[in-house]
Amino acid sequence: LSLRPGTASPAPVLACTRWGSSGSGNSGGGWGSGQHPRSYAPQWSHMLAGLLAGTGAVLAYGLHQNQAEQAATTIPPASKTPFPIFSQEEVYKHRTPADGIWVTYKGGVYDITEFVAMHPGGSKILLAAGGALEPFWAMYAVHSQEHVLEILSEYKVGELSPEDQKQQSASSSDPYSTDPPRHPALRVNSQKPFNGEPPSEILSENYITPTAFFFKRNHLPVPKVDPATYRLEIEGLPNGPVSLSLEDLKSRFPKHTVTATLQCAGNRRSEMNKVKQVKGLNWGIAAISNATWSGVLLRDVLLDAGYKSGGTAKHVQFEGLDKDVTGTTYGASIPLGKAVSEEGDVLLAYEMNGEDLPADHGFPLRVVVPGTVGARNVKWLGKIILSEEESSSHWQQNDYKGFSPSTDWDTVDFKSAPAIQELPVQSAITQPAEGAVVDRSMEEVTVKGYAWSGGGREVVRVDVSLDGGRTWQVAKLRGGEEDEPPPPPGRAWAWKLWELTAPLPEDAQELEIVCKAVDSSYNVQPDSMAPIWNLRGVLSNAWHRVRVTVNEDAEDEE
Amino acid sequence: LSLRPGTASPAPVLACTRWGSSGSGNSGGGWGSGQHPRSYAPQWSHMLAGLLAGTGAVLAYGLHQNQAEQAATTIPPASKTPFPIFSQEEVYKHRTPADGIWVTYKGGVYDITEFVAMHPGGSKILLAAGGALEPFWAMYAVHSQEHVLEILSEYKVGELSPEDQKQQSASSSDPYSTDPPRHPALRVNSQKPFNGEPPSEILSENYITPTAFFFKRNHLPVPKVDPATYRLEIEGLPNGPVSLSLEDLKSRFPKHTVTATLQCAGNRRSEMNKVKQVKGLNWGIAAISNATWSGVLLRDVLLDAGYKSGGTAKHVQFEGLDKDVTGTTYGASIPLGKAVSEEGDVLLAYEMNGEDLPADHGFPLRVVVPGTVGARNVKWLGKIILSEEESSSHWQQNDYKGFSPSTDWDTVDFKSAPAIQELPVQSAITQPAEGAVVDRSMEEVTVKGYAWSGGGREVVRVDVSLDGGRTWQVAKLRGGEEDEPPPPPGRAWAWKLWELTAPLPEDAQELEIVCKAVDSSYNVQPDSMAPIWNLRGVLSNAWHRVRVTVNEDAEDEE
Repeated sequence: LSLRPGTASPAPVLACTRWGSSGSGNSGGGWGSGQHPRSYAPQWSHMLAGLLAGTGAVLAYGLHQNQAEQAATTIPPASKTPFPIFSQEEVYKHRTPADGIWVTYKGGVYDITEFVAMHPGGSKILLAAGGALEPFWAMYAVHSQEHVLEILSEYKVGELSPEDQKQQSASSSDPYSTDPPRHPALRVNSQKPFNGEPPSEILSENYITPTAFFFKRNHLPVPKVDPATYRLEIEGLPNGPVSLSLEDLKSRFPKHTVTATLQCAGNRRSEMNKVKQVKGLNWGIAAISNATWSGVLLRDVLLDAGYKSGGTAKHVQFEGLDKDVTGTTYGASIPLGKAVSEEGDVLLAYEMNGEDLPADHGFPLRVVVPGTVGARNVKWLGKIILSEEESSSHWQQNDYKGFSPSTDWDTVDFKSAPAIQELPVQSAITQPAEGAVVDRSMEEVTVKGYAWSGGGREVVRVDVSLDGGRTWQVAKLRGGEEDEPPPPPGRAWAWKLWELTAPLPEDAQELEIVCKAVDSSYNVQPDSMAPIWNLRGVLSNAWHRVRVTVNEDAEDEE
Repeated sequence: LSLRPGTASPAPVLACTRWGSSGSGNSGGGWGSGQHPRSYAPQWSHMLAGLLAGTGAVLAYGLHQNQAEQAATTIPPASKTPFPIFSQEEVYKHRTPADGIWVTYKGGVYDITEFVAMHPGGSKILLAAGGALEPFWAMYAVHSQEHVLEILSEYKVGELSPEDQKQQSASSSDPYSTDPPRHPALRVNSQKPFNGEPPSEILSENYITPTAFFFKRNHLPVPKVDPATYRLEIEGLPNGPVSLSLEDLKSRFPKHTVTATLQCAGNRRSEMNKVKQVKGLNWGIAAISNATWSGVLLRDVLLDAGYKSGGTAKHVQFEGLDKDVTGTTYGASIPLGKAVSEEGDVLLAYEMNGEDLPADHGFPLRVVVPGTVGARNVKWLGKIILSEEESSSHWQQNDYKGFSPSTDWDTVDFKSAPAIQELPVQSAITQPAEGAVVDRSMEEVTVKGYAWSGGGREVVRVDVSLDGGRTWQVAKLRGGEEDEPPPPPGRAWAWKLWELTAPLPEDAQELEIVCKAVDSSYNVQPDSMAPIWNLRGVLSNAWHRVRVTVNEDAEDEE
């Protein structure tokens, strides 16, 4: 059964050093035995972090270069060494370490028993055991890279029978095929799931980000939800569960509007990547946007549904209607106090910028948790659960947490860090762009950007430097409408745009423009990225730096 | 009247550059005329900041060195040029710019008309017009420095009559004479008012700082309050004012106990001083301590007194019973939301560490505002006022605010920055001390310290570096009692002590030990002090650095 024609080349080795010594060939060991004892299993779920986050860099990074170099650059043609033919029925018998773990891909049959322990996506790979990889790889597009195929080719043991190949291709489909169209100006960090950010200069041109340009961060395919049959389920209440239609929500509760900035935990990850490669989407500075959200207060709905203070619940969990191939939904939770506080302003929103929520932003209903990391603002909201525990979802437990720069994928203990909720103070320069040329004849330079802080802490000052941080000038801040009253303390949910026009420093041939913001708790951004580097590349909020060249005007020189 | 025998030497010049050009001799100009137009008056109140803060460095810094060098080093003996004799009655006639402004000091009569505009303490100096300086200088001990006398000597115009001298000395007294005794181990930053901090290693030896070692930060003399006749007045309530005795508070409201860390806004100012001199007490790293406070909830008292939500009040002002010579009390305010929130835990405390409040910490009643800068935790509480406005006190309006490093005393606009309430994340190394010697034979080094953040944000991690910040290790955190439940989110009012024992790096002859803390909003400390430098030296929370030497053990070398 475990004939393995391709074992001449060494088994793949992970970059992950703890596992680096486990690469010696040992066919048939598999799950829970040999050099991969079961006690290592929790590590796999951590490796899953990057994969589920939809990054295109995960496997490229997680599996190191030797393997790619040693392997053939394409799947070896079956003609050279004819492979045995297996039926789908036969393949299906191989679903456990004892029987061997087989999968099929594009007509090939692969015994991946040995690879299972080394899969960066962890035990999720077992879901494909005995069947086709295609639906899983369609969900996690990170696999569509050349050297993933190279790794797979090592494990080929046969060919799938032509009849079964035919049937399989008929049943495969792309779960992302019904995703909505997106604005072509968005910079795409991942197509499936869709993750894109606007050109950064658009951010500072609009206090309210136009909906089409609001950054999009999906973890899974966009679900199609029929608003007529949609139900919001609420569980964990003293009087039993409650189910509400969209109409119930709109008609029975007062409508509230909140202007709130959402920011992805991975905003500005690309700068952290320059210090040392991290796992995650390579966001620029525009995984942040500001919108006006309308809907009902979560507090109102919970109180109406029977919530009473003094119970045992400590968290409010949210489940999305977006699902992976196993039927697992996106999920997250927030502290109960934030959800039920009169000052929390947590919305179940059905409108964004005055119109129905678009499909990419959670139609027909999403949570908006002002001041809190994007990941907790669950879209396509299906269920709310009041609980003593945080959400058990991958994204709450094993992702979206911060660690010391010294923590790597071998030493990380996800239980040791709290789930990110409120984000730290942030700012970035949207104009001029990196590498821009400023004319000396202009005599002045105008710098623009955004600044925001989590937890409702208002940005109170932005300092801008034109000389790399040696001297500073205070930028002019711009909030919402002039006639709006300032937000109460601790409820400044929206960003501030800022601007500074300053004389061009004489003789400077290059400017290193830097910005740093201060919030109402006088928290500041750290000077540099290396000391806040973390393996997932989240919380990237060091000073933002942009280098521009000063062009001596030809006419001036005459 | 304005005979000025001593005008040969130039008039004193302030270091303050705006006024640097106003030093040419011009007797009789005075208040609101000549080179010191009235429009400069608001600047004086800023200069007052340091003075009222009780710093010993204010005048030493505010008045520059030239003056000191040019002036005689002591008051010139009257015998050389005999001065005219004036009666107190005659002196008293000189209390306005038009009449000249005269004061007396130790039997001398001085015409300070010209100096008034240059007084770093601002217009407060006019309170002494026509009378003796002694009671004012006794209150603001900053004046008891040699070159203050040098400056004064420039303005001598006469001698006070022997009879009036006799009478004056009889009426002078030291307002600090009834201050309580303090532990001799405290490092004294200012004797009058008393400001002292414990040896820093004591901080990390005790999770609860022993009362005698809790840092003391007084702005004024300690008032003597009789608990039997003490009343707490509450104003700004819909049903009119309320007056409560200590017994009322203790018997009518439930007793609550909160463990909360208090930190002075100026903690670690000495490190900021190394970047560039600031104004304020030269605190080390120990203007922070942790205690258990017991008393009644401000919320309970306000609700009982008739407070209802939905009114126009936005702030809760506190007035101390400590007064300056003019009868002005210490004052501060906090946002109403913090005061009345169920989660705010604001106490009117009558006990500290299980005993009656000591005189230095506010006997018989003080406010404890957990998570909020020390300055708002008003001691010797006399009055509470609910108001639409913040406290109008100097300390709320023109002190305890943060500014850009580019802001100096000429450009500062105190209205442009919010009063400090919640403090940013902070940590420091208490052991080893700067300059300590570590024996190579020990093989390990143990580093200890404290970490805390404002706003109830729990410290979630402390990183320690032994190589100046290039590599980091995670310290072990220590909270309160092991069996205590963790604080709810946003209510972590107490610090964490931390400790790291790590192998001594091989070959290192010196260690630059650095610490940085992360709070539950993932805010971090900035890398360096210069970019957060501010003219008052507050919010000094960059990484703390300690250099130690590694001593190669003689025996090992044999």
